Amino acid sequence: MRICIIGFGAVGQGVARVFSMKRNKIKQKYGLDLELVAATDSEGAVISEGGLDPDLLIETKKKTGKVSEYPKYGVSGLSGYEVMDTVEYDCLIEVTPTNIDDGEPARTHILKAIENGKDVVTSNKGPLALSYREIVDKAKSNGVEFKFEASVGGAMPILNFAHETLAGCDINSVFGILNGTTNFILSRMAKEGSSYEQTLKEAQQLGIAETNPAQDVDGIDAACKVVILANSILNRDVSFKDVEIDGISKITPGSIELAKKEGYLIKLIGEASQETLEVSPRLVREGSPFAVGGTLNVATLKTDLAEDVTVVGKGAGSVETASAILSDIISIWKVRK
Amino acid sequence: MRICIIGFGAVGQGVARVFSMKRNKIKQKYGLDLELVAATDSEGAVISEGGLDPDLLIETKKKTGKVSEYPKYGVSGLSGYEVMDTVEYDCLIEVTPTNIDDGEPARTHILKAIENGKDVVTSNKGPLALSYREIVDKAKSNGVEFKFEASVGGAMPILNFAHETLAGCDINSVFGILNGTTNFILSRMAKEGSSYEQTLKEAQQLGIAETNPAQDVDGIDAACKVVILANSILNRDVSFKDVEIDGISKITPGSIELAKKEGYLIKLIGEASQETLEVSPRLVREGSPFAVGGTLNVATLKTDLAEDVTVVGKGAGSVETASAILSDIISIWKVRK
Repeated sequence: MRICIIGFGAVGQGVARVFSMKRNKIKQKYGLDLELVAATDSEGAVISEGGLDPDLLIETKKKTGKVSEYPKYGVSGLSGYEVMDTVEYDCLIEVTPTNIDDGEPARTHILKAIENGKDVVTSNKGPLALSYREIVDKAKSNGVEFKFEASVGGAMPILNFAHETLAGCDINSVFGILNGTTNFILSRMAKEGSSYEQTLKEAQQLGIAETNPAQDVDGIDAACKVVILANSILNRDVSFKDVEIDGISKITPGSIELAKKEGYLIKLIGEASQETLEVSPRLVREGSPFAVGGTLNVATLKTDLAEDVTVVGKGAGSVETASAILSDIISIWKVRK
Repeated sequence: MRICIIGFGAVGQGVARVFSMKRNKIKQKYGLDLELVAATDSEGAVISEGGLDPDLLIETKKKTGKVSEYPKYGVSGLSGYEVMDTVEYDCLIEVTPTNIDDGEPARTHILKAIENGKDVVTSNKGPLALSYREIVDKAKSNGVEFKFEASVGGAMPILNFAHETLAGCDINSVFGILNGTTNFILSRMAKEGSSYEQTLKEAQQLGIAETNPAQDVDGIDAACKVVILANSILNRDVSFKDVEIDGISKITPGSIELAKKEGYLIKLIGEASQETLEVSPRLVREGSPFAVGGTLNVATLKTDLAEDVTVVGKGAGSVETASAILSDIISIWKVRK
């Protein structure tokens, strides 16, 4: 399977690292030969139909900041869009940064690949939160696979879990801690009794929160994931603007303390059902699967037959997210071979 | 797909109920037509190649205690073994009671079906804890599917999750609260400060613990599940006798209190790795996915790429367990169609 990676930030590099780590094992276990034929970043690209060395690619990127500095095969200034016209490939990995305003350039990359009959795997929330139905319908009519496990909660594989593992159940709603940064902040506030502002600062110092933390603490990231869960698992047709969003910046140590006395914790919860699309701070019971701390993500599927089934995993991390992409690639391979 | 259910206790009746609830939906969604052609219990059987009415079957069993009282098609005294020689079917559902001494009669039922080229789904821990490799090898050499999601933790679908959803990861170990009764007792002791003996009595009154609670409280049930996890997920070749087992009957309110002060809970944990097969009471941190109470089951997969991934679900319940059986049937259908 010839792979083209568009975007070579943390997730793109994670994919390359995972290819390097697991290529032989995957070949042996599934008969799938992963061949990385192109990679791009905002500065240029590298293309080799004979296959790129993932380790050399990561090293080149780390040293020079540009994939186009890859020996012999680098091309400065070439865009992802142009690369897709140039190289022969089977599966596009779209891992450019999420853009929640118009989903670009990821949306165009994905649609172009689908129109050209290529399978697509992405971790990019933008196109999924804004143009889900358009992309899925186009994938269906072009007979290609479109997979996006990594877009919700990195290594908390909730989408394929819902579709495959729980195939016998109808799923009525999804309910989760979908953002690791806010979980870290709220867990720490509960433990230390510290203020929101101080805890955010600590999280920033630890590299867990961004310098501009709005995406996380205002619930935007979680809202994108709510949209993806609603469209993919509940078969709805909604977009980012449909979500009611409330963040965590107004939560005080006093309210956390009060909740604690009653046996509750405060968590930022995303909920998707046929009636509701919401991100807001809510009370969860101690001793429930939602009482997890740190940067963990959790999602509970409310089903007709199995009652509540919950998955807990790391919500972020480059190799962790890449592992979800690899599982998607393998599931495409099982369909294609 | 013509289905033959051997055993018509709680799980068998759950399967019939699920067939009744979901048959139309499954047909519509997967193109799979589920036809129940036979069911047996210890008293006899009922066979109809034209298909049985699941609701009437459940009603008959509830009223008379015997499936053989089913109008027109009931046959008193016919054994499961004989039924398998009589009826034309595609998939055997083996849900007789677990027997951990020699795995019978389930082991013989399963092997016979496999030898006859039938697919098999079971929730029965006995044959899996005692004769796993024999059965799996025979299924492979006969080209049939053998699925047993329901044997570990009812509605906590850990096996298919490991094999399908986490296809890109290597799994190094499995670690879990694999028995709901002991989780209930230990959670309640922690909450109420009550003694083991008193709490066990309460659990028995609530119908959560059996009159003879040894299977649960002595760790035997959890040990069977450790064996299944080790063989299925870690590709080991072990059996029940290989597990080191310690139960919960010696745990005192004092030790629970002491753990609590340090931020820990005591849970009965089953662990399977390449080196270890063990069931024993252990400390788990508050705020970890293992801090769940009630009768919930939890299992964490330690993976190479995604770190720890955890599934939480109801460990028992007739419809819940049947939902895992239905998911297995659907996955067989996806291979067969």
